[in-house]
Amino acid sequence: MRLTAQRTVLSSALAGVLVLGAAAGYAVSADLTGNGDARRIAGDQTSTVRAELRGGAARNVILLIGDGMGDSEITAARNYQYGAAGRLPGIDGVPVTGQYTTYSLDRSTHEPDYVTDSAASGSGWSTGTKTYNGAISVDVDGAAQKTVLEMAKANGLRTGDVSTAELQDATPAVLVSHVSDRGCYAPSSSACTDADRLETGGPGSITEQLLNTRPDVTLGGGAASFADTARAGQWKGKTLMQQADARGFDVVTDAAGLSGATRADQSAPLLGLFSGGNMPTEWNGAPATRTGGTEAPIRCAANPAHTAAVPTLKAMTTKAIDLLDAPSAKKGFFLQVEGASIDKQDHAANPCAQIGETVAFDDAVAAALAFAEQDGNTSVFVTADHGHSSQIVYPGTTTPGLTRTLLTADGAPMTMAYGTAPEGGSQDHTGTQVRIAAYGPGAANVVGLTDQTDLFFTMRDTLRLDPDKELPGAPEIRSVNINDGAVLRGNKTFVVTLDAPAKYTYIELNQGGVWKTDNTKAPGSTNAGSKPTLKIDTRDYPDGTYSLKIDAVGIDGRTTEKVLDLEIRNH
Amino acid sequence: MRLTAQRTVLSSALAGVLVLGAAAGYAVSADLTGNGDARRIAGDQTSTVRAELRGGAARNVILLIGDGMGDSEITAARNYQYGAAGRLPGIDGVPVTGQYTTYSLDRSTHEPDYVTDSAASGSGWSTGTKTYNGAISVDVDGAAQKTVLEMAKANGLRTGDVSTAELQDATPAVLVSHVSDRGCYAPSSSACTDADRLETGGPGSITEQLLNTRPDVTLGGGAASFADTARAGQWKGKTLMQQADARGFDVVTDAAGLSGATRADQSAPLLGLFSGGNMPTEWNGAPATRTGGTEAPIRCAANPAHTAAVPTLKAMTTKAIDLLDAPSAKKGFFLQVEGASIDKQDHAANPCAQIGETVAFDDAVAAALAFAEQDGNTSVFVTADHGHSSQIVYPGTTTPGLTRTLLTADGAPMTMAYGTAPEGGSQDHTGTQVRIAAYGPGAANVVGLTDQTDLFFTMRDTLRLDPDKELPGAPEIRSVNINDGAVLRGNKTFVVTLDAPAKYTYIELNQGGVWKTDNTKAPGSTNAGSKPTLKIDTRDYPDGTYSLKIDAVGIDGRTTEKVLDLEIRNH
Repeated sequence: MRLTAQRTVLSSALAGVLVLGAAAGYAVSADLTGNGDARRIAGDQTSTVRAELRGGAARNVILLIGDGMGDSEITAARNYQYGAAGRLPGIDGVPVTGQYTTYSLDRSTHEPDYVTDSAASGSGWSTGTKTYNGAISVDVDGAAQKTVLEMAKANGLRTGDVSTAELQDATPAVLVSHVSDRGCYAPSSSACTDADRLETGGPGSITEQLLNTRPDVTLGGGAASFADTARAGQWKGKTLMQQADARGFDVVTDAAGLSGATRADQSAPLLGLFSGGNMPTEWNGAPATRTGGTEAPIRCAANPAHTAAVPTLKAMTTKAIDLLDAPSAKKGFFLQVEGASIDKQDHAANPCAQIGETVAFDDAVAAALAFAEQDGNTSVFVTADHGHSSQIVYPGTTTPGLTRTLLTADGAPMTMAYGTAPEGGSQDHTGTQVRIAAYGPGAANVVGLTDQTDLFFTMRDTLRLDPDKELPGAPEIRSVNINDGAVLRGNKTFVVTLDAPAKYTYIELNQGGVWKTDNTKAPGSTNAGSKPTLKIDTRDYPDGTYSLKIDAVGIDGRTTEKVLDLEIRNH
Repeated sequence: MRLTAQRTVLSSALAGVLVLGAAAGYAVSADLTGNGDARRIAGDQTSTVRAELRGGAARNVILLIGDGMGDSEITAARNYQYGAAGRLPGIDGVPVTGQYTTYSLDRSTHEPDYVTDSAASGSGWSTGTKTYNGAISVDVDGAAQKTVLEMAKANGLRTGDVSTAELQDATPAVLVSHVSDRGCYAPSSSACTDADRLETGGPGSITEQLLNTRPDVTLGGGAASFADTARAGQWKGKTLMQQADARGFDVVTDAAGLSGATRADQSAPLLGLFSGGNMPTEWNGAPATRTGGTEAPIRCAANPAHTAAVPTLKAMTTKAIDLLDAPSAKKGFFLQVEGASIDKQDHAANPCAQIGETVAFDDAVAAALAFAEQDGNTSVFVTADHGHSSQIVYPGTTTPGLTRTLLTADGAPMTMAYGTAPEGGSQDHTGTQVRIAAYGPGAANVVGLTDQTDLFFTMRDTLRLDPDKELPGAPEIRSVNINDGAVLRGNKTFVVTLDAPAKYTYIELNQGGVWKTDNTKAPGSTNAGSKPTLKIDTRDYPDGTYSLKIDAVGIDGRTTEKVLDLEIRNH
């Protein structure tokens, strides 16, 4: 049960109207002038809060990240949409709370860097390792650090990665990839280093690694990077979208497609690409300017670019949960959901877009909480990756920076200030500790002061993940029952031993580039499982030199090839 | 037991050296680069946190307010003094945490004012009533609201009010006074309205009301206002310092005087006045400027104005606790401690002074926590009244506002930015929700999202205060055993019935302005208690017209006078 709230000022129905920019008259707050009128709790919470501190394991973990969503951003969204005495149904409903530190490390000195970016920050909770700004789940020396999503998958859980940003952006990327520079989106990205690139022996760009890590559900923007072409490896010369298709991803590109998805698993992972870059914000409005604070208060409007074809964060979250939740399965799921453009619109000093994204994120949190409460075996963590610029200042004032005054649900003016960059510049992150809140098993581990890296261990341990379990890569060919250069006569059954069952294994006899057998047709052959076989009668083939080519194709499309020379000599 | 912390980076001995501005070489942080190296918790906290959620009543409550101490200010102080991975021994040691909203109300529209000042904010937790900026424990209509200190005193608890500010400043004032404008420090303050002034029927200035409310311990600055002169009432024409003396206050003015104090109660309340205005800050350093962020990082220095004669906030807190804690007494105590100049130096864009005051406040919190842990029956609440301007930005950057780069305990540069006012202006409060933390019974009531006004009810209910009990004023003369104009013969015992025991009651026979008796000498008389008497033989006095003058003097020096005419007629 969640904590009781004494009042909720604004009905969600009215909130819907407000977003669309209705005319004046938003004074919906109740009388707050009397003794006790503004209370949020009705009496002693001790037993309620104690009941929220459930120990033990959770079957599922949902982690929701409001990018750049410090307490100032939370308060501004509440004030605007629900009034100062109101309540964000999601964020304010997460019962157990604390703060965590977000600092990163300087790459060369290894001393703290007091202002993190989303890459170092996300790497922290994703891997439990502090790193430098720009790093995607590698440590200060560039060594890959296993992520909670990889670990969840290796332990047999279903996994999801949802964001309103490009899927290559730092927060979604830290779960599925390891690159030394966050800008290494695609094979041709100039930010990729030799340590990253496939053609120089690296693990590939973020998009390529996303396809390898293969969460069951991946939803967001960033379609543009999928048009890039692989420069090495199994899919060299193919676009990343062609690779996704070849590897069985079920790609959807709009809200209807998302809505129609009914299955997402390792055979057919769901890949939602709803925008070339970042997804459009839900709201828009005049940005802060040098004098905006003194101008007439504005109401925020719906962003026309966020058409009905673009799913909301709540819709993505709800669908991801629906697809990942399989009560009959042995294991549960890990899902991360990011409200990315709180940060991006804070950078842009656009209070309406920032608040709209916070409200949209809050809707997603509410959906996750509702699932968790109904499920009874799910932990929900809600936090930010770092603080940001926006501050609520005295109404109608200006500052040396940028300001804008909004008319809130209370019918009162709220002035937002952005003071870390000049007009036209990008407002910047701040180094403050930020709020972390939790529901369900393990929630106690956010109380008091923790560090971002603690969250990794809390999620790992709440899900009881064995950190030593490894993600399956391409099938490994352990042995073949002939030696290279073998001389064969009469009937022969080729037996390939793999480390794990493959989706398919092609075992084919080849001569001078011409296929002589096709194991999908060969009588007596098996082409799947961990011991695929091909049975031939060598007398069907003229004596001569051949090769046996073996391609073991994993469920994720990754293939291991082995070629052995052999001689048929029946005469 | 408090939550365990895995590491404390900086020893306090070293911290002492740092404050004094030692040369470079502060890299004291351990290696944070490995997996898990930055963790703050060692494992599952569920049972530890559950154990912290004690219900029930507390004998004592200590409320510590860091004025303007948002999460950004807390983080900056930790980074500077203990390193990013370090731990503030006080603030970070308070185990149970949440956030609360701080908004005030517009005085005319009654709509939320999203940025509070310390007056409205303090009135909120002190009385449970939301009010307008500038109000000292009066509601939006100017009606006095009973404060938690008044309520504690009315319920028989000892009380204390400690601040580094002037005692008339908003945060200490909200506990002991009710004025419509926070500037009404003393009888001659121009900010006083007719509703406030004694001579127009009001309760008097903040200083006068402080003397009436008479906490057992009141420590801080603000001596200047005590030189002002009362314009009405019992002490008209006397300075407020003369009044304090007359009313039995034990006044100390330096650290030695404070240290020597061994008693503080209603007979002799302790009044520490350590500065004419606000007390000097403990540290100082170059303020933020337009280009400060790009200049060489600075270390903070001790402030020479904070001499050995000026007690630290920790010393004031420890002494207040020592004096208020009376294990043999039936009831406990309520104590508020304010670190006031975190706010004032944030206004001044002086990061060193701001951080020094935060560290000093943290020392006071640590002392309060240590007492509470040892006592076992004390709740501690630690919070701020509102957010403020300072932000931690990328090292070495400038902003449209003011910046300054400091060299922290990590040996790393930390750039502080102040962006709400131009150079030379006063940086301003912000409207963000702020952290609240608690230890002891009732701690659960800070978890999640609460409002500032909830804290009043939490403290009231944790102390089991009866809100209807009234503070004693001057003694009330309920009856006298003669009627006005009575005719007396022979022996007569005058019996005065008071509502409560008085310190002294003078019952005197007067004729033409000449005192004929002195009840302190009259045989068989009593002059204290709730039924003082005077026994005379009327035959000792010539027949004629007399008056009986009664002055009942309360323990706080406030006096009620009653005069009855009588006639002695023995012949």
